[in-house]
Amino acid sequence: MALIVQKYGGSSLADADKIKNVAKRIASTKEKGNDVVAVVSAMGNTTDNLLRLAQQIHSEPDEREVDVLLSTGEIISATLVAMALRSLWYDAVSLSGAQAGIFTDKIHRRARISKIEPERILKELKSGKIVIVAGFQGMTLEMDTTTLGRGGSDTTAVALAIALHAGACHIYTDVEGVFTADPRLVPDAVKINEIGYEEMLELASYGSKVMHNRAVELGEIYSMPILVASSFTENPGTLIHGGIPMEIRNKVRGIAQDLNVAKITILGLPDKPGVAAQIFQALADADISVDTIVQNASVNNLADLTFTVTRTDLSKALRTIDPLAKKLKARECKSDTNLGKVSIVGSGMQNTPGYAAKMFTTLSAENINIQLITTAEIRITCIIEEGMMNKAVQALHKAFELDKTAA
Amino acid sequence: MALIVQKYGGSSLADADKIKNVAKRIASTKEKGNDVVAVVSAMGNTTDNLLRLAQQIHSEPDEREVDVLLSTGEIISATLVAMALRSLWYDAVSLSGAQAGIFTDKIHRRARISKIEPERILKELKSGKIVIVAGFQGMTLEMDTTTLGRGGSDTTAVALAIALHAGACHIYTDVEGVFTADPRLVPDAVKINEIGYEEMLELASYGSKVMHNRAVELGEIYSMPILVASSFTENPGTLIHGGIPMEIRNKVRGIAQDLNVAKITILGLPDKPGVAAQIFQALADADISVDTIVQNASVNNLADLTFTVTRTDLSKALRTIDPLAKKLKARECKSDTNLGKVSIVGSGMQNTPGYAAKMFTTLSAENINIQLITTAEIRITCIIEEGMMNKAVQALHKAFELDKTAA
Repeated sequence: MALIVQKYGGSSLADADKIKNVAKRIASTKEKGNDVVAVVSAMGNTTDNLLRLAQQIHSEPDEREVDVLLSTGEIISATLVAMALRSLWYDAVSLSGAQAGIFTDKIHRRARISKIEPERILKELKSGKIVIVAGFQGMTLEMDTTTLGRGGSDTTAVALAIALHAGACHIYTDVEGVFTADPRLVPDAVKINEIGYEEMLELASYGSKVMHNRAVELGEIYSMPILVASSFTENPGTLIHGGIPMEIRNKVRGIAQDLNVAKITILGLPDKPGVAAQIFQALADADISVDTIVQNASVNNLADLTFTVTRTDLSKALRTIDPLAKKLKARECKSDTNLGKVSIVGSGMQNTPGYAAKMFTTLSAENINIQLITTAEIRITCIIEEGMMNKAVQALHKAFELDKTAA
Repeated sequence: MALIVQKYGGSSLADADKIKNVAKRIASTKEKGNDVVAVVSAMGNTTDNLLRLAQQIHSEPDEREVDVLLSTGEIISATLVAMALRSLWYDAVSLSGAQAGIFTDKIHRRARISKIEPERILKELKSGKIVIVAGFQGMTLEMDTTTLGRGGSDTTAVALAIALHAGACHIYTDVEGVFTADPRLVPDAVKINEIGYEEMLELASYGSKVMHNRAVELGEIYSMPILVASSFTENPGTLIHGGIPMEIRNKVRGIAQDLNVAKITILGLPDKPGVAAQIFQALADADISVDTIVQNASVNNLADLTFTVTRTDLSKALRTIDPLAKKLKARECKSDTNLGKVSIVGSGMQNTPGYAAKMFTTLSAENINIQLITTAEIRITCIIEEGMMNKAVQALHKAFELDKTAA
């Protein structure tokens, strides 16, 4: 008999019928002889509705209070799933994050789990109960409620699987798993049956919003395999784990795209030590993440500096940069939001030449202009015009033969 | 500087504007130099909506799970009130029943408070904060959430006032206080400025639904004065306390009516020992409260037994009684739901003759037939036809000169 930790997302719990369906899936896992701990998110749009209510009271509500407010959404789901299991004659009990023994630091709205004391869960499992845990939340040592940030229920599930030495961690969501590219853009996209943690992280941070990165990182650190699958079908999903034999698989695993990109160019900056440092320090102080950075060759001791930020951060970034650019006597500061990132990802690419060249050739053959390039160990990213994105993803998917992947 | 415990009901917190209004009232109490602990109910119809959601999942949902589900309503209110206070620049913190140190027994849906460990509240007050406590809830020693039953937030407030040795306990609701009769029936009804605990209990259990009886009982046991007032006006309300000089006040304090009354008559019961006991034991086993009981004189060794139950319990009571009446060879079992109770209440009535006679004469002068009579130490109740209720209340209010009460 194994212990299985499952997680069900908000769209799988949006109404009473969907909750009953989730209960049936949990029951069938129990029926196969497993102990089950199920982590649940808030129903449908509950979290957004609670935040809207808070906004009506205070434009910038206190984060401690917001955490308590939001945590009720997952608690409500947990009680309803427990009731639904009882209506199927299974013994079930709901636990809040605090009752489940999930302790966090004091950083409200994006707390990190510090430890898990799973005695209560173990006691309930021992008495034969199915345990439903409210996801996304924990408590500080002072018994204050915290939340783990958006997508935190994934983290709750993986952390509990690790603390309970579970045999498996299943993340059930509204997609079938991880695909070689976004199936809405690429009809030939193939579901990937197995993927490594690193590859999953690169695909996720570059746009496949299948599951929360923190949860994947946690799984990687503790070598906990994670299955991502649909809560609406019985299809097998994608298994994220570390034991994938590197040599026998396709070198490029997937194509990721991301349209939340804006580019800033500072023209005619004096080319002397410390200038770039001043600019990026100012952006860091304003809590703005900078992605790709390119500085071109100096002409007459003046250089152009280009970098990207998310579109959501653009106006804040410009407010930060403009006075500084004036002070540094730069000629001009320009920005462009009609951009996107396209990436090829695959740990098989490491130390293997030719991938970058093939990527650039493919885009060039489609008349797509590459504005900036960045590379990481297992990823190559090009920044291109937004309107060219679909064409780029489709061409790369074909060029790297992902449609033929024995996934 | 005093510590004041306040309680705000659900209709005072029904939307964002009402919550802001409650925050202003709390702030003005703080502004007068008091420490404030405010207990809040769930917003408007939240509790009913959550119960409806549970019913969609399970026709008889598990009571432990229902308690957790319902407790979220008060927690949401508490966070929103704390946010509203912060928007007025007051430092405030919300606490769940568990965080407030309210421990209860394990009887879900109608738990009773076993002890209060107010250290967390005292710590927050000491740091200058206004403390908002989610009403209606507590936790067991095993850290399981319980609820105190309908109206339980009143009990939370009075219990906290006692545990914190508060200078005052204010219950804010949607009425102006306790009246000599229901103002919708008697336009001349007068607000009572001061009332004793016993009188309040008799008025409340006989129909003035101003506040929860358990809370009044608790106030009586610990001699905690309770002010009941409107959360929408600045009018002074009614003070419930024990120090009312008995001699100087009007002897009848108020008229109560209650239409949730059904009468059951068992005709032709054998008049021998143990028959009545069998019937009332069966009703008690079925968890049905019996109110007035009358057995008439025996004729041919056969007696008629009449008693009242609430209308809501009538069909369950008949299902319990019918087989028993057959077994006991009673002639017939009849019921009547077109009835109501009217009561005069006042501790000044104790040991003073003539009140009952005056009540019966008044009703008789209005051609109102009295079907049953019960008396308690400070109350006389008549059961009359439902259609006569308004006339009865108005006539009694006038006869006992309650319109002239210097309340």
